[in-house]
Amino acid sequence: MPRSKESARANLENLYRIFTVPEAPDSTLGRIDQAISDNVTGFLQKHIVALENSITDIEKSFDDPKIPEEPTFVSDYTEFIKEKLVAQSVHTAAPGFIGHMTSALPYFMLPLSRIMIALNQNLVKVETSKAFTPMERQVLAMLHRLIYSESDAFYHRWIHDSRYALGAFCSGGTIANITALWAARNQLCSPSGNFRGITNEGFFRAMQHLGCQGLAVLVSRRRHYSLGKAADLLGIGRENLVLVETDDRNRINMAALREQCRRIQDKGIRPLSLIGIAGTTETGNVDPLEEMADLAEEIGCHFHVDAAWGGPTLFSEKYRSLLKGIERADSVTIDAHKQLYVPMGAGMVLFKDPAALSSIEHHAAYIIRHGSKDLGSHTLEGSRPGKAMLVHAGLSIIGRKGYELLIDQGIERARRFAEMVQEHPDFELVTAPELNILTYRYNPASVQEALAHADAETVREVNELLDKMTKRIQKRQREAGKTFVSRTSLTPERYRGQTIIVFRVVLANPLTTEDILASVLEEQCEWARHPEVSPLLDQLQEMTAAA
Amino acid sequence: MPRSKESARANLENLYRIFTVPEAPDSTLGRIDQAISDNVTGFLQKHIVALENSITDIEKSFDDPKIPEEPTFVSDYTEFIKEKLVAQSVHTAAPGFIGHMTSALPYFMLPLSRIMIALNQNLVKVETSKAFTPMERQVLAMLHRLIYSESDAFYHRWIHDSRYALGAFCSGGTIANITALWAARNQLCSPSGNFRGITNEGFFRAMQHLGCQGLAVLVSRRRHYSLGKAADLLGIGRENLVLVETDDRNRINMAALREQCRRIQDKGIRPLSLIGIAGTTETGNVDPLEEMADLAEEIGCHFHVDAAWGGPTLFSEKYRSLLKGIERADSVTIDAHKQLYVPMGAGMVLFKDPAALSSIEHHAAYIIRHGSKDLGSHTLEGSRPGKAMLVHAGLSIIGRKGYELLIDQGIERARRFAEMVQEHPDFELVTAPELNILTYRYNPASVQEALAHADAETVREVNELLDKMTKRIQKRQREAGKTFVSRTSLTPERYRGQTIIVFRVVLANPLTTEDILASVLEEQCEWARHPEVSPLLDQLQEMTAAA
Repeated sequence: MPRSKESARANLENLYRIFTVPEAPDSTLGRIDQAISDNVTGFLQKHIVALENSITDIEKSFDDPKIPEEPTFVSDYTEFIKEKLVAQSVHTAAPGFIGHMTSALPYFMLPLSRIMIALNQNLVKVETSKAFTPMERQVLAMLHRLIYSESDAFYHRWIHDSRYALGAFCSGGTIANITALWAARNQLCSPSGNFRGITNEGFFRAMQHLGCQGLAVLVSRRRHYSLGKAADLLGIGRENLVLVETDDRNRINMAALREQCRRIQDKGIRPLSLIGIAGTTETGNVDPLEEMADLAEEIGCHFHVDAAWGGPTLFSEKYRSLLKGIERADSVTIDAHKQLYVPMGAGMVLFKDPAALSSIEHHAAYIIRHGSKDLGSHTLEGSRPGKAMLVHAGLSIIGRKGYELLIDQGIERARRFAEMVQEHPDFELVTAPELNILTYRYNPASVQEALAHADAETVREVNELLDKMTKRIQKRQREAGKTFVSRTSLTPERYRGQTIIVFRVVLANPLTTEDILASVLEEQCEWARHPEVSPLLDQLQEMTAAA
Repeated sequence: MPRSKESARANLENLYRIFTVPEAPDSTLGRIDQAISDNVTGFLQKHIVALENSITDIEKSFDDPKIPEEPTFVSDYTEFIKEKLVAQSVHTAAPGFIGHMTSALPYFMLPLSRIMIALNQNLVKVETSKAFTPMERQVLAMLHRLIYSESDAFYHRWIHDSRYALGAFCSGGTIANITALWAARNQLCSPSGNFRGITNEGFFRAMQHLGCQGLAVLVSRRRHYSLGKAADLLGIGRENLVLVETDDRNRINMAALREQCRRIQDKGIRPLSLIGIAGTTETGNVDPLEEMADLAEEIGCHFHVDAAWGGPTLFSEKYRSLLKGIERADSVTIDAHKQLYVPMGAGMVLFKDPAALSSIEHHAAYIIRHGSKDLGSHTLEGSRPGKAMLVHAGLSIIGRKGYELLIDQGIERARRFAEMVQEHPDFELVTAPELNILTYRYNPASVQEALAHADAETVREVNELLDKMTKRIQKRQREAGKTFVSRTSLTPERYRGQTIIVFRVVLANPLTTEDILASVLEEQCEWARHPEVSPLLDQLQEMTAAA
């Protein structure tokens, strides 16, 4: 056989191998795979390097824009991944990682994910998903019932009627929020008379038809950033996402909301939707949903609740009432990759009215044909994996009572942490937890004392220095890799409109103990005394002593 | 200890267990996990029931809308999943499953997916993804270079400059297409003078500013259905997605395109974008991209190429030229879960100009802050998993040459299948493969013969009967579960505007042999003679004998 033909044949054989021959158990990848099966916590602890490399250093391993010409051995590639990717990733499951909305996952999620990936179903159509289609519809019904508690007859009627949908499964809360506002927009601008609807004629003709200058969405200024994207994408415009003042507990101010509704209506702009937040991303507060529902009813607009974070609070008999009024929402967003403990990439939007999603319905000739059971006719996304299976698994294996425990514990742990912050002389609690999120900052007792009596100018200057310190402590703590809190900026009433930087803590990981919480505070005190931060501390003490 | 406290404690302990104790290797779930590791093909073959249950039957296992109160044992749940979900799912990896765009996956994708899921990174921000962030940027650069072949200096300049992005990673091609048109719309309606841009002021004010009646997107009628969604979502309106006639090879008719451009401009509507298709979903054809690029340049609009399917043809030295002109596109969509052989849920959009995505840039206080490296500032989605890792793995392990082999083989296999269809007296090839997709139908030799000479009325009636037969054969073949082709409707020139139903075949699975292809045809012949289909055959023969 000539050389080139021989090598072509060898290439072909190698190619078939990667599709047909599993990794050997004693190969590098096989061993890692086994290690993760045996003990994922141990694997993550062993392989993720705690100490942070600079991102510029890490980038050096990922700076070749050329696709390799020749194949690489799986074992060599796995070594690379182990050293350069896994080692330099973030231990999001660590019980001391309390800065963002990730947590440890239940163990069964890993092998079940493998089944899901091995099956590689595509939920856009029944022909590539079969049983996954009714399963996803069941999951949507379960979450719908958690929110709306309709009758058995209601669910019996709608659960598998493919002309309608109780909601849409999506890759995350952003797509869920966009889908909710998309459906609301299309319902408001639905076909009537000669007007063929915004879906067909577009935004400009819709405004001409309605005789108005634009649409507006009203939400508290604590809203998630996805709503700005939604307003942009849907042609509403970010300026028509009206951000309403909040009270000192970060909940929308109803008087201000009414006032804003009047203001935009005077400008010829039509309120498309009010959005209530059930668990603000930064502070975990819940808007007065009942009052918002009343107002939405009064002015005749859509009422959406962004419960991406807080939705699962409904599992708790004790705390469910915090979300009172959510059952009156026209649509609700819930993220599964947050407090349903499903791996990244799963969210849902539920609609009270099973016909609501008809306003965004679409079809094609080769799939999602009229009358088919294909889920793709009512989703923003097209091809999608069978992630609903993992929600189904969580709901089944953990059960309502299991989730209730997780929720109750999170809220109680957050309250305990708030007490610890308050009991410590050198910390200032900025927002107390309503759900399981709180914010605070390092602020030495003497400075706190001085702040209470200082003039406006000094308060401003002190807060600016404290901001610098908060940023520096947060960064050093993150880089050290033992524990992690995030940071954000808030405008608490006590500082009269001044925006300050705070630590933000999310307590959803059931493995986070009180000892770990104590060590988070301890570490922050240590960083405050570290040579890189302590000059700020000295400055602060000087400034307040002078005042 | 009182009874209730005791049981609460037991519940809590169980809850910790699911977060800390792995499934035992000899548990039901442990055994399935091992079986998939050892031999995924065997697992799928063994557990997926070939014979199709009716969807109504399957629905019975998924019709309880109540979230279970009490936890379920993992082993019981796994049994349920095995019997009711896995057994009733679709064997999308089977070499005889040639009806949709799924294929067998390379083995290494499974253990690597487990690493990805165990790490549970969130790519929206560096704080929850660290090394995954530069890795995703590298993957985007690699695909950008595959399309645009810019210089080393270019990539060195842009690859890790977080103020810009060479593209966006998404959950699939639909989001990719929407992102492309979103960026194009915002660029066309960017801030100027007193106008603060469509992003801020919205669609209505943007049209007033531009002094036009709407925006239009022009694409061939063979476009993917996601573009209708994009037009709806972005406020353009489905009627302003102008569907242009195609030639007999399903490629956009340039004269018709020019004519449509004039027509909409006369109506005061501004062309926002031309869209070229590189691999139409139903027939795998490629638009004349070079000529479209010329026209887009001439009228000064965006040029997007939807290469969700065909993009990886660029790996092939032999067939790359089929996509000539793609390098002049302003944006290009490529799906990774199609011909990059990555599990479901991964797509990309690449932009020629690294500044293009600035038109949709957004920030928040607690993440994606100005100046941060967070990828979330330039994506439609928010929280996202680290799927880019699997693309990185594919590109590294398979290499450019490996993908070239896969592409070349697919195209050549499609040509071979087209020959087989043509050689068989009782089949009619409807669209020949340009890439690796073709369409055909069962059509007995005598009927084909008669069709060639029949009058228009008879042709119409014969085609209607053939449609019924095609639908029935496709359905029976799917239900029998041995092999699978999909179906769609096309309007081939030879039947002068009559829409007919055809079998659609996608040849991307490297394990699909010529024997399997032969058996697909054989099975279709058998179904044609089956008592449920053969009466149609008799009718056909009568009708054509009479004519």
